[in-house]
Amino acid sequence: MATLARPGADQSLGPRLFATRKLTLDLAAPLSDADATIQPFPDASPAKWHLAHTTWFFETFILRDHVPGYRLFDERWPFLFNSYYDGEGPRHARPKRGMLSRPSLDEVRSYRAHVDDALERALPKLGPVALDLIELGINHEQQHQELFLTDILATLAENPLEPAYGELPLSACFAIEPLSFHPGRDGVVEIGAAQTGFAFDSERPRHRIHLAGHEIANRKITNREWREFIDDGGYRTPTLWLSEGWDWVQREGISAPLYWHEDSTEFTLAGRREVDWAAPVAHVSYFEADAFARWAGARLPSEAEWEDFAASADPNLGNQLDSGDAVAPRPGGGMFGDVWEWTQSAFAAYPGFAPAAGAVGEYNGKFMCSQFVLKGASCATPRGHSRASYRNFFPPSARWQFTGVRLARDA
Amino acid sequence: MATLARPGADQSLGPRLFATRKLTLDLAAPLSDADATIQPFPDASPAKWHLAHTTWFFETFILRDHVPGYRLFDERWPFLFNSYYDGEGPRHARPKRGMLSRPSLDEVRSYRAHVDDALERALPKLGPVALDLIELGINHEQQHQELFLTDILATLAENPLEPAYGELPLSACFAIEPLSFHPGRDGVVEIGAAQTGFAFDSERPRHRIHLAGHEIANRKITNREWREFIDDGGYRTPTLWLSEGWDWVQREGISAPLYWHEDSTEFTLAGRREVDWAAPVAHVSYFEADAFARWAGARLPSEAEWEDFAASADPNLGNQLDSGDAVAPRPGGGMFGDVWEWTQSAFAAYPGFAPAAGAVGEYNGKFMCSQFVLKGASCATPRGHSRASYRNFFPPSARWQFTGVRLARDA
Amino acid sequence: MATLARPGADQSLGPRLFATRKLTLDLAAPLSDADATIQPFPDASPAKWHLAHTTWFFETFILRDHVPGYRLFDERWPFLFNSYYDGEGPRHARPKRGMLSRPSLDEVRSYRAHVDDALERALPKLGPVALDLIELGINHEQQHQELFLTDILATLAENPLEPAYGELPLSACFAIEPLSFHPGRDGVVEIGAAQTGFAFDSERPRHRIHLAGHEIANRKITNREWREFIDDGGYRTPTLWLSEGWDWVQREGISAPLYWHEDSTEFTLAGRREVDWAAPVAHVSYFEADAFARWAGARLPSEAEWEDFAASADPNLGNQLDSGDAVAPRPGGGMFGDVWEWTQSAFAAYPGFAPAAGAVGEYNGKFMCSQFVLKGASCATPRGHSRASYRNFFPPSARWQFTGVRLARDA
Amino acid sequence: MATLARPGADQSLGPRLFATRKLTLDLAAPLSDADATIQPFPDASPAKWHLAHTTWFFETFILRDHVPGYRLFDERWPFLFNSYYDGEGPRHARPKRGMLSRPSLDEVRSYRAHVDDALERALPKLGPVALDLIELGINHEQQHQELFLTDILATLAENPLEPAYGELPLSACFAIEPLSFHPGRDGVVEIGAAQTGFAFDSERPRHRIHLAGHEIANRKITNREWREFIDDGGYRTPTLWLSEGWDWVQREGISAPLYWHEDSTEFTLAGRREVDWAAPVAHVSYFEADAFARWAGARLPSEAEWEDFAASADPNLGNQLDSGDAVAPRPGGGMFGDVWEWTQSAFAAYPGFAPAAGAVGEYNGKFMCSQFVLKGASCATPRGHSRASYRNFFPPSARWQFTGVRLARDA
Repeated sequence: MATLARPGADQSLGPRLFATRKLTLDLAAPLSDADATIQPFPDASPAKWHLAHTTWFFETFILRDHVPGYRLFDERWPFLFNSYYDGEGPRHARPKRGMLSRPSLDEVRSYRAHVDDALERALPKLGPVALDLIELGINHEQQHQELFLTDILATLAENPLEPAYGELPLSACFAIEPLSFHPGRDGVVEIGAAQTGFAFDSERPRHRIHLAGHEIANRKITNREWREFIDDGGYRTPTLWLSEGWDWVQREGISAPLYWHEDSTEFTLAGRREVDWAAPVAHVSYFEADAFARWAGARLPSEAEWEDFAASADPNLGNQLDSGDAVAPRPGGGMFGDVWEWTQSAFAAYPGFAPAAGAVGEYNGKFMCSQFVLKGASCATPRGHSRASYRNFFPPSARWQFTGVRLARDA
Repeated sequence: MATLARPGADQSLGPRLFATRKLTLDLAAPLSDADATIQPFPDASPAKWHLAHTTWFFETFILRDHVPGYRLFDERWPFLFNSYYDGEGPRHARPKRGMLSRPSLDEVRSYRAHVDDALERALPKLGPVALDLIELGINHEQQHQELFLTDILATLAENPLEPAYGELPLSACFAIEPLSFHPGRDGVVEIGAAQTGFAFDSERPRHRIHLAGHEIANRKITNREWREFIDDGGYRTPTLWLSEGWDWVQREGISAPLYWHEDSTEFTLAGRREVDWAAPVAHVSYFEADAFARWAGARLPSEAEWEDFAASADPNLGNQLDSGDAVAPRPGGGMFGDVWEWTQSAFAAYPGFAPAAGAVGEYNGKFMCSQFVLKGASCATPRGHSRASYRNFFPPSARWQFTGVRLARDA
Repeated sequence: MATLARPGADQSLGPRLFATRKLTLDLAAPLSDADATIQPFPDASPAKWHLAHTTWFFETFILRDHVPGYRLFDERWPFLFNSYYDGEGPRHARPKRGMLSRPSLDEVRSYRAHVDDALERALPKLGPVALDLIELGINHEQQHQELFLTDILATLAENPLEPAYGELPLSACFAIEPLSFHPGRDGVVEIGAAQTGFAFDSERPRHRIHLAGHEIANRKITNREWREFIDDGGYRTPTLWLSEGWDWVQREGISAPLYWHEDSTEFTLAGRREVDWAAPVAHVSYFEADAFARWAGARLPSEAEWEDFAASADPNLGNQLDSGDAVAPRPGGGMFGDVWEWTQSAFAAYPGFAPAAGAVGEYNGKFMCSQFVLKGASCATPRGHSRASYRNFFPPSARWQFTGVRLARDA
Repeated sequence: MATLARPGADQSLGPRLFATRKLTLDLAAPLSDADATIQPFPDASPAKWHLAHTTWFFETFILRDHVPGYRLFDERWPFLFNSYYDGEGPRHARPKRGMLSRPSLDEVRSYRAHVDDALERALPKLGPVALDLIELGINHEQQHQELFLTDILATLAENPLEPAYGELPLSACFAIEPLSFHPGRDGVVEIGAAQTGFAFDSERPRHRIHLAGHEIANRKITNREWREFIDDGGYRTPTLWLSEGWDWVQREGISAPLYWHEDSTEFTLAGRREVDWAAPVAHVSYFEADAFARWAGARLPSEAEWEDFAASADPNLGNQLDSGDAVAPRPGGGMFGDVWEWTQSAFAAYPGFAPAAGAVGEYNGKFMCSQFVLKGASCATPRGHSRASYRNFFPPSARWQFTGVRLARDA
């Protein structure tokens, strides 16, 4: 959860709030009511649910808790659109989110309008606690914008008709720079978010850590390099894999990144297309990333190595989400954008970590188990949401996010 | 499959075809695109799928096979809307039918209009084989009309908002006649469909069977009687149950008919309502029906006992489906209508059973395993679809159909 | 359960009881304590469990209930060795039977000796109810002798070292008679056990049934004929299979009888051996038997057809179990012995069926669901246990019994 | 894997080898052939398998690879007793280890004698590589001695007769010192195994790490304190739990440590006994340890905090395994012995980690996923096997080891 530590009123908060709210609506524009209803698998959510849940967050933690006299849009909806806040009472079972044809997409849009109106009226009168929660709500909604895109990609990928969410330019010829390694710093460095400015609770406190000598690659691994891994039998060589990863490969019959087909095409938000060999590989699991690194004679970076290395990079640059169009990784990016980068670091508490009080304190801490940290940002991450201290996390078998690989090695 | 044995042209075929096609559309009228997309569990199908699959049947077996020059509405759709005809090639996995937001409900309506137009033009020129297949297609679509209603009931029941499909009159006061038993015939009788007139392949040939002395109840078991079974500990007494049924009760935590709630209400096509205690119990499995009968000191009738008993009843009477409105069992009906009646007979081939040639021959024979026969008709069965020889069948744990109980006993 | 209807004292009862008890011990002679402890899968039981459970039956229903002053061998053991009699209270979970290293095989032998001694002392004083239960206990133990052998075969088959239970003669050259069909009777016939003599409850009452014209094969299907079915793609042709059977074949990767290996050998109670091509095929499921029959242009016989056909055959002849040695199907047998024969009849109650009173009444009736009847006897059936009215039953996917195929067809 | 870095011949190696080999045999002395055959669940192994697998290790990596002319005891056994070394070829499926009644316990004892004899003859002639592998083999066998005891405890716990493995003294009255916290060091410290002496590959290299201010508890949490956690609703309060842990608690119905019964008794290697309230709690999962710490307003220590704190403790003291008797946690111990202590650290590679070459290199690295580190030693850890740098690891839901809790907190 957020510790905003705002010295005075943040003049940008209102505009940022409503720009964020509008972007979510824009993302939903190409979808039918039915598109927005499907849950492609239990860990993903219907598009409509993302639209409603982000709204429930503001309705609950701002309007209900901080705006006297506010009446819920519909008293039965919090049960449906609470995600995992046990402190907020019982809720609809996650794997059943795809059973909700009602409320309709249009009704959810009305819910959004209702809550946005109330937020607009309430904003001038909110105190600092509520304003901090609005900042948190903006960042929370940005996270769901990325999930919105990855979940709708997973949804459309289930349809043999291969419908496209939007359009993408054809991939152009691109000369990839050769893979090389840059020395990282060793000794005691600091990582984590500073006390000022927004950050999630799990990014704090900023603290010291000791780095051993190491090097980090100049760029991400490309689809072409992944093709070589496949052609060299990478998916059929047990000694390259973690034990749990090898079980997974065999049980699930994994032999390529998630959306690849056998004819050198892949399914994207713009439908089925030729794989862009110069672009960073995406939709690979931690297991695959780790096996690839071993095959390449390297390893994945630790979170601290990555964060220290990226400290001077501008997190607002790169191929990130700006508007409601289809997105895809593109060749040639930097530390932020295109694909999240798996690290070898399990998601765990920083020394002195303290969750926020109340229900929003359930935000991150309760997932500190069986998850690996990803750093950077992807083409589906809203621009402005990123920073070096950001800690994304997913289980080691997850593939439906835009997730890729940057190599590191001991010095 | 059908053996129509039509002596001359059946003048009613065209009107019946288009009336049936229209009724399916009427049933879909209250649904949104999203409603029509959800698959509530793997053995049920989305409403949209029923609309498209019944159309695929006519497009494939009539238009493609018997109308020169016909072009498919969309060449990719047969893969989606074939149900289980292995002879018709590969098909979309059944448990994945809920992943299809496209084609939309409106596109499926266009598909129906396109096929109906082509059928209307083709009808005057079709030969007897094709006309027989149209008769089969009508009956096939009527079966899906019933599944349409039971599947949409299951879909809406998944939604905590409890949306209603339509409206139903309030239940009135009704005096139920006391339960009594009528003697059935013993000795050699004939069952099965005669050679003339439409019937499914599994209803033929008509054949002799020997009945021992027995009696059959004058009416179906009511909700009130089922309540007594519950209150007497019926769901907690293992000796009342088949071994597999008792496992099922414990594993699934079964303690009442499918849509009952603890406050004496039940979910219906008109939303949540007070249980109508005088109406026949519905949505009970074979396991429950069998346990109830044992509790009552009786047994379920065999298929032959039921069919011989019902031979003189008019299958067109009773509470059956006439139009696109909500339906529900009502007090006081006869042998046909309200709820299907479980028999103790496993679904099996009659002596001399011969499946039809070609893909339509896959219709019934391949399900002759682990299914029990139900007789009669329900409130969701289209009027005109029923006959005493009709053999409905479901696995012993199925509950989402309108299924109930009539008792029998040895004389 | 038994209805013995004994006119006077059965002088053979004592000798038959102790001969049966001894045969069970003989069957266990080749086993180590560890062999006798393993449960190869949840529906099978450890050898030690069979030894103890059959003893528990006599201890409970004879000694405890009919012998004043009898004290249980161990008060904790009934919990372990009750099988499925809910009327006898709680019991150890069936899938956990392989967790019992204690009591040891020797302790179970002591249990048997203790109970046999008590039975010997009690026998002269027992009344007719108890004597009927002893007859039932003998037949019950004979059933477990067959399960003992099929379960130990399944156990040893799990071991890559392929240990042999015993020895078998090498298969000799044998000229199989050509397959032909004999007409069965049509019209009203009687099946089921007569009122006198021992039979299980489910075999009664004897009753009339109407048979349509049909023919039955002169012999069982051989391994050589099954090989032709495989070579003709039988396991890869969906239209030959029941829908549920085809799902099973694909899910389990079934491509041959249970114990066949790819090099024309099979695992037997004498270890791995060359398949005896002239012997009847064994260890095939109902699904396979049904698919084979369809491939052969025939069908399986109904139970009634089989029973009427076998009425004049001597059930004591043929390759059945006589002593504690390894057994296997052999070429050239008749209606009884070598392998049980699948029928197309679901296991169901005969008209007027009445289970026995008390816990032993749970014997058969509660399994009348999802099971098919098998007729005849196998090489593992104790000689003397068989009769034409006998109704063996197993689920359609079961293969670990000695189960084979005799064809029939409509006349 | 080991890096022994032995300057000269280690005179103690032979005696330690054969003492270790003998202790394993002693542990098996109370077991019957059947006891030693059972696999209580897929992640545990039969006692017999431990005896054979540790022998296979020496036969394969010493005798086969370093002793010319050695012939395998049985060529079929390596398939059975390889555990997870993919480099050593195919192997018997882990969940099927309980299917092996053959070889018998006595045959496995003969295997051990055969290999021990060969080792004794070979020892004087082995070179440094082989001697390093013998050191590794000793440590490997010590690990399996602990698993032997925890797996046989799990096996006997499955038996409703509650057989005892051995005897334990009755618990005496004991005054527990109050819980208090000692400050740990902060700043840069070193952890990991030094270059000299035996250690597993994952303990190296020794490296620097930065510790923030923190405190560590003076002793482990007792059964009495755990009882308070239960009585305070700890197992029913979702906000105390990791998200995955809460799912686990609900799915598995967890409400107490693994072997506790409702009547204040627990199952031990000496059978069912009163819980010793002053002894450290054992058989709790990471999920439970973490929830308890949160309930207590503390947290689990990190691996580095624990290791630095324990650096000056003598790892050879405490309640550890000395002989083939029953063991159990006792009140009043220190950093080593009684129960392993869960840390909050995921098991991961140290900076510069390099697995050993060859098949033995599969020892630890491939498990660096979804496992948490445990430090110290338990009552089942062979004395002499422990050191502060030791890294035990198990998945967060594992409970069948002797696993307990020491608290820490931020300073």
